[in-house]
Amino acid sequence: MTANSWGLGVSKELRMVDKRMRELVDSPQEILTSVALHVIDAGGKRVRPTLAILSHHALKGKDLSGLIDIAAAMELIHSATLVHDDINDGADVRRGKKAAYKQFGLHEAIVAGDFLFARAFYLGGLFGKEIVERVAVSTTKLAEGEMMQFAHKWDAHLSQEHYLQIIEGKTAHPIKSAAEVGACLAKGSPERIRALGNYGLRIGIAFQIIDDILDITASEKILGKSTGTDLREGSLTLPLIIAMEEDKKVAKEIRAIFAKRHATDAEVEDALELVRESHAIHEATSIAEEYAEKAAGYLKKLPESTYRERLFELSQLVVSRAN
Amino acid sequence: MTANSWGLGVSKELRMVDKRMRELVDSPQEILTSVALHVIDAGGKRVRPTLAILSHHALKGKDLSGLIDIAAAMELIHSATLVHDDINDGADVRRGKKAAYKQFGLHEAIVAGDFLFARAFYLGGLFGKEIVERVAVSTTKLAEGEMMQFAHKWDAHLSQEHYLQIIEGKTAHPIKSAAEVGACLAKGSPERIRALGNYGLRIGIAFQIIDDILDITASEKILGKSTGTDLREGSLTLPLIIAMEEDKKVAKEIRAIFAKRHATDAEVEDALELVRESHAIHEATSIAEEYAEKAAGYLKKLPESTYRERLFELSQLVVSRAN
Repeated sequence: MTANSWGLGVSKELRMVDKRMRELVDSPQEILTSVALHVIDAGGKRVRPTLAILSHHALKGKDLSGLIDIAAAMELIHSATLVHDDINDGADVRRGKKAAYKQFGLHEAIVAGDFLFARAFYLGGLFGKEIVERVAVSTTKLAEGEMMQFAHKWDAHLSQEHYLQIIEGKTAHPIKSAAEVGACLAKGSPERIRALGNYGLRIGIAFQIIDDILDITASEKILGKSTGTDLREGSLTLPLIIAMEEDKKVAKEIRAIFAKRHATDAEVEDALELVRESHAIHEATSIAEEYAEKAAGYLKKLPESTYRERLFELSQLVVSRAN
Repeated sequence: MTANSWGLGVSKELRMVDKRMRELVDSPQEILTSVALHVIDAGGKRVRPTLAILSHHALKGKDLSGLIDIAAAMELIHSATLVHDDINDGADVRRGKKAAYKQFGLHEAIVAGDFLFARAFYLGGLFGKEIVERVAVSTTKLAEGEMMQFAHKWDAHLSQEHYLQIIEGKTAHPIKSAAEVGACLAKGSPERIRALGNYGLRIGIAFQIIDDILDITASEKILGKSTGTDLREGSLTLPLIIAMEEDKKVAKEIRAIFAKRHATDAEVEDALELVRESHAIHEATSIAEEYAEKAAGYLKKLPESTYRERLFELSQLVVSRAN
């Protein structure tokens, strides 16, 4: 899925965010720029900028240049964490491109991630307290979510509750803060900022659950990486947890893979096929749909507008990716 | 050298900075707190906070709580980069303690560094534009300096000029911004802020040159790590560059070590002994002294005060460490 593929009438703004990010990562140390552009060029779904823009517009905000800057800052933070996460996940490929640390080297990737944080801080630190705090706190929660996920690597007994805690931290809180920040810049009322935050948090959870489903069901072409990455890397996700709960055979296979901390391609494919045949995909999708519906419910607190409609549409698009 | 060993009458403030840093790194993910405290506990010379405090007081600033916060933010950024740099340098030991990534693991160290950046952003992002920009730009230059140093690893032809560019980025700019930030918070005039920045930049250069000399001349007990780390890791420093220029035998030995990208302890010790016997240590010390003197020259632009005296004293202490 590319930057504009949500098709929510914000492609002009997303191009501006993209341009701003590119300007920001210019450096006399060309390798830093190269690593940064490698990640920016790979595209991605631009969920955070999209949400910041839609939220801002839904509250009839007029601060376009501020909006572009803060959206770029948040996406730079996201890029920084992607560069570092790929190292931690041992990932070979990200969005159909070689992972940055594989392409440029481990040390280059570590420093480039830090450089991206510095550039994001440069751009994001110029906003007021209510915005800076939200961005900084969500970045903290992101690191905490990553750490928690890492602590549970190869844990074949991860509960649904802990899974949800992990994805709240690493995905949903950053998305929540993007929605809130767009609303703050539009000078929205506390109630509306809160509503958009609640919307964003649930969109984020739904989004990650669907991502985790696609890691099992999608083709490599759509994923831009091989299927079954989570299983291969020792991370249980919602569909895997449900499948293990429902089917002892699946539980046994996955526990065996986790016990030896390695699986052949055939073993991964066998396990995934069992998960695909189970009710787990359907159930996990239903849970994501519930979150998306709850998200949409919060939109009632906003005034009617085209952008509110688009936020509603986004809540459906986030889950319809799984079909 | 411990936090208070500069003995410049700022130990009360440094303790407050230390306390603030500890508060900030509290996290439900205990491993993040552990990594952070591992680095904070190791102490270090606290040059950035010391300079921010002295600069602030020299301009009769009254914003003690802001000063403690911004000093803590800058030291957290410094801590984040130390955690990541040790990975890049392959260092085993930092300040007499096991390097964080060796103690806690590579992935834990990468995420903990990001967590420290997030916490610094939380604290530092709440200041005004002139402060945020200075901190963010110096953090950018720090990453660029690191990258440049890394690009010149095992480069036996690094020039003095490039060496100076590297240490300006990775050490002097952060120290410069600490001095400026303390001055900004004291609502100093642009001229005085500039003077303190110029002072800080040169103190930073002198400080790093002396650190690089101590890596050759000091005992392991004083260093808190083994001697000759720079040589072992393939980084030429000023005394090494001078020694190579002056003595063909030294140049040959170091080039041989760099060519095979590895050296035995005996080879390192042999090369270091030649450097110690050359005029290079004396010359490098003289260059550091010149920077420190130039730094002190900028203090004339400040009003007379006890704290101006202490800044002067610091310019002498920075270089007298080599003796």
